[in-house]
Amino acid sequence: MDIGREAIRQARILADGCVEVIPEDGLAARIESALRGGSGLRVKLGIDPTTPHVHIGHAVPYRLIRRFQDLGHTAVLIIGDYTARIGDPTDRNRERPALSEAEVNENARAYTDQILKIVREDRLEIRRQSEWFSGITLGDFIRTSACFSLAHMLTHETFRTRLDSGNRLSLHELLYPVLQAYDSVAVEADVELGATDQTFNCLCGRDLMRSVGMEPQMVMTVPLLRGLDGRKMSKSLGNHISLLDSPEDMYGKIMSIPDSFMPEYWRLAAGVTAEDTESSSLHPMETKGRLARTICAAYHGVEAAVKAAGDFDRVFSKRGIPDDIAEYRIADGGEGICGVLVSSGNAVSLSEARRLVLQGGVRLDGEAIRDPSFTVGSPELGEDRIIKIGKRRFLKVTGTG
Amino acid sequence: MDIGREAIRQARILADGCVEVIPEDGLAARIESALRGGSGLRVKLGIDPTTPHVHIGHAVPYRLIRRFQDLGHTAVLIIGDYTARIGDPTDRNRERPALSEAEVNENARAYTDQILKIVREDRLEIRRQSEWFSGITLGDFIRTSACFSLAHMLTHETFRTRLDSGNRLSLHELLYPVLQAYDSVAVEADVELGATDQTFNCLCGRDLMRSVGMEPQMVMTVPLLRGLDGRKMSKSLGNHISLLDSPEDMYGKIMSIPDSFMPEYWRLAAGVTAEDTESSSLHPMETKGRLARTICAAYHGVEAAVKAAGDFDRVFSKRGIPDDIAEYRIADGGEGICGVLVSSGNAVSLSEARRLVLQGGVRLDGEAIRDPSFTVGSPELGEDRIIKIGKRRFLKVTGTG
Repeated sequence: MDIGREAIRQARILADGCVEVIPEDGLAARIESALRGGSGLRVKLGIDPTTPHVHIGHAVPYRLIRRFQDLGHTAVLIIGDYTARIGDPTDRNRERPALSEAEVNENARAYTDQILKIVREDRLEIRRQSEWFSGITLGDFIRTSACFSLAHMLTHETFRTRLDSGNRLSLHELLYPVLQAYDSVAVEADVELGATDQTFNCLCGRDLMRSVGMEPQMVMTVPLLRGLDGRKMSKSLGNHISLLDSPEDMYGKIMSIPDSFMPEYWRLAAGVTAEDTESSSLHPMETKGRLARTICAAYHGVEAAVKAAGDFDRVFSKRGIPDDIAEYRIADGGEGICGVLVSSGNAVSLSEARRLVLQGGVRLDGEAIRDPSFTVGSPELGEDRIIKIGKRRFLKVTGTG
Repeated sequence: MDIGREAIRQARILADGCVEVIPEDGLAARIESALRGGSGLRVKLGIDPTTPHVHIGHAVPYRLIRRFQDLGHTAVLIIGDYTARIGDPTDRNRERPALSEAEVNENARAYTDQILKIVREDRLEIRRQSEWFSGITLGDFIRTSACFSLAHMLTHETFRTRLDSGNRLSLHELLYPVLQAYDSVAVEADVELGATDQTFNCLCGRDLMRSVGMEPQMVMTVPLLRGLDGRKMSKSLGNHISLLDSPEDMYGKIMSIPDSFMPEYWRLAAGVTAEDTESSSLHPMETKGRLARTICAAYHGVEAAVKAAGDFDRVFSKRGIPDDIAEYRIADGGEGICGVLVSSGNAVSLSEARRLVLQGGVRLDGEAIRDPSFTVGSPELGEDRIIKIGKRRFLKVTGTG
């Protein structure tokens, strides 16, 4: 094997889809040196264990981790248990600013269970910050912080903006990038991966490693995946696809994205390279179905993906109705549509029901109802009517007879 | 005893000569509450053990400490051994940025020996930062730093100026005031004293104590004593009076200050209140002699002060020459003045000698020599001549005959 050529080949595979590789042309040389030394690269990625939720946006860097593993390199995942237990002492809005050890362990276990759907179990090191931080002396930490200048910290846009706008920026927040940088020293990372919002922190790792006389890690950043509505994917915005979503939910959510998001979802969520997707000459709807099956299969297996696709096609593409939907018995003389939505559990309040109707999200036998004062009449026996709420909820309306 | 009245009396005595008392009108109430609780105040002052040198400028806050002790309160001196051993990791100009434990102990011992000439040995606690910092966890420290905002740190003029001017300000420097503030929490200080350049750090102590639910310490600042040349007194500027100076040196240095400094030296170096000095109706020279005797007596005892005064008067005031001065034998045909100064050990180099002459600091039989090329002729036997270098060094020039 020509090691130089192999390193260039790997670098090309690994850099594909990355937003930045820092230093830009350093990856092949770093791989070559690792290959010549008979070892793989140590590729670091941090895990925030303050929540157990992994969504397919989080999965983007894990797909890159997997590519590294498949090429023989070692993934070093770092569970941020130490910082999670410190929490953000200035966050007075949270009832429990810091997590207990049990909570951190629980989250870390749930999180790693999910990402093991993506990464390999071999060529994998799972480390914890507490391994090095529970024993560090204050002196060592202060010496570490001396490697960073305040001016440099303020090149981080978030910090600068908060300082200039008069929003509180506490000293400990300036220290968290220092901790993350120290992680890189502790595990002797060759490469640190992160989404684009982690670039600054990863570069701090480079600076610190240089300061302590180590070869600075490379930094590779991947894009943030847009959520279903185009904003950054996030559980709190409700626009995410969780790795724990059922095959049906996952499939349906992917089918709901705008066509224009597809190349990004192919690349970032399905892990299919640009060339593969561009070669597709199918109709957008069919392509989206393939995308949804691909992503669904990655997390739930091919069989579940095919079943989810079948269900979806029956319900939506063919405008069919699922076999088993809830029934609602309308009182004689009819009921107002908003009352029906609340009583059937499809809206939490009359005002939410009203909004749904006004937005055109409620249909009776296929026709949008746009008047919140609309009365749903009691159907004759055997002439059940179908109310559709949003894209995937149905209600069979029956009479009292 | 009327405790309220006694507290007001003490507050007046203690605040006399202070630049600031923060909060301005809080001292009497704080004293009253301590007296009612049957205990005295705990009055904190930090010692920097990176050098063993104490000068009479440093002594100013110790005189205030002594006043507190004499009124029944407890002095809590904190040896900054922990920060001294960390040092300033960014100071690349120093060969040994951090001190060894032995050096710190040596300095601390030398320092406390000197200040025990001012403070009492009873009502005295000597503490070390390492008592609390060698065991602190990183988590506790980070939680502590969260009590401080960066914006607040940048109200410290030194920090703001360095950031704005582009001079490096390292993160650890922002942390040192946090450490000093933590000291106040650790020793449960009621009052922290410092010179005016310590106001910011002392106020950080107030902030932290408030954050952790303690009653915030009071802050009392005293003026910085000007050095002999009017700049801030400092060993590195060579304008200081050391507590280890001989009685003669101490006396002579004080006699050399401009008359206009006298009120400040009476107040800050002799610890004599303004009223006492203003009542003096003596000639300035006599007042300065009294000042020099007072300061000298405080550190060396009355007998040594009186002897130093006698020596000084004989040599300077009466323009006499000390009995026992060095001789220098001039070669036949004479020698250049600069060569004489170097050969006799009164200048380390010809260029220093040249500078001394040009500055008018060298006199032959009372006449200033201003020409560095001046030749000192060989005197006839019994006609010795006197060279005076600076204010207090003399050389008897003899011939070869």
